[in-house]
Amino acid sequence: MSVINELLAANREYADSFDQGGLPMPPARQVAIVTCMDARLHPAKFLGLNVGDAHVIRNAGGRVSDDALRSLIISNHLLGTKEYAVIHHTDCGMLSFSNDDLRRKLADRGDASGIDFLPFTDNEASVREDVEAIRTSPFIPDGVPVSGYIYDVNTGALQTVVSADT
Amino acid sequence: MSVINELLAANREYADSFDQGGLPMPPARQVAIVTCMDARLHPAKFLGLNVGDAHVIRNAGGRVSDDALRSLIISNHLLGTKEYAVIHHTDCGMLSFSNDDLRRKLADRGDASGIDFLPFTDNEASVREDVEAIRTSPFIPDGVPVSGYIYDVNTGALQTVVSADT
Repeated sequence: MSVINELLAANREYADSFDQGGLPMPPARQVAIVTCMDARLHPAKFLGLNVGDAHVIRNAGGRVSDDALRSLIISNHLLGTKEYAVIHHTDCGMLSFSNDDLRRKLADRGDASGIDFLPFTDNEASVREDVEAIRTSPFIPDGVPVSGYIYDVNTGALQTVVSADT
Repeated sequence: MSVINELLAANREYADSFDQGGLPMPPARQVAIVTCMDARLHPAKFLGLNVGDAHVIRNAGGRVSDDALRSLIISNHLLGTKEYAVIHHTDCGMLSFSNDDLRRKLADRGDASGIDFLPFTDNEASVREDVEAIRTSPFIPDGVPVSGYIYDVNTGALQTVVSADT
């Protein structure tokens, strides 16, 4: 059985006992999280989120890319969220390569020189940079709390890098 | 207590009983999912994913944007995933506005005419388009299975739009 068929079988079981229909579209807790796609991160679990609570935006690195900002603008202006958090994590793949490394690896397939893969070398600095990208977006209201954290994949704990008050 | 402080308190409880450290960086099940940021979607739950199983990429709409492709390229070439699924959902906010609507709403803050918010009017068509965007990327190997689904927020069930074999 291919992996996707296993996931579809798991979904049939989930749907059989599903009892959380009828929730409204806007997140109940009016918060959006930007975090990494890493398989070891289950943000709903490690933040205690219920179905319907929060927008969760994820990409390689948990970067506040233009696309993450697109999502946050929709979250804020159309779906009423009022607080944002950026969560990077220990042992992140984005700390393990450079744009040039990956572009060389892809060269047989095409020219990837126009793609910034958004790797980073300093985890805390990348969190600060991404918090700042939200805070300075003209499309996100001033004064909205934006905070930043590093999730430890070995302990399950969040370390604060930028608190919501600063 | 602000919402983020409630999430941090939930995280301290989670970390107190956390016993899933020491997992490797590459996803155990070698699969990556692209889905929407919607608060009603808990993909780990509705796909039966364990910590460490799968990359999860999320944005407004679950669109295969340039940034989602950036993440998928990293997932494939650096972290060994071999299968992809796109999951949109019923009652999606992306079906409720146009680029012009949102740009007008943002006009007081700045010129958003350069931002494509990637809304859509036909859910199945958007799934097909996003599956195709992965299949036709020069940087994703030919023959990798890519499938597409719509998650029903009222029943918890996935409906297949593009199966992995086609």
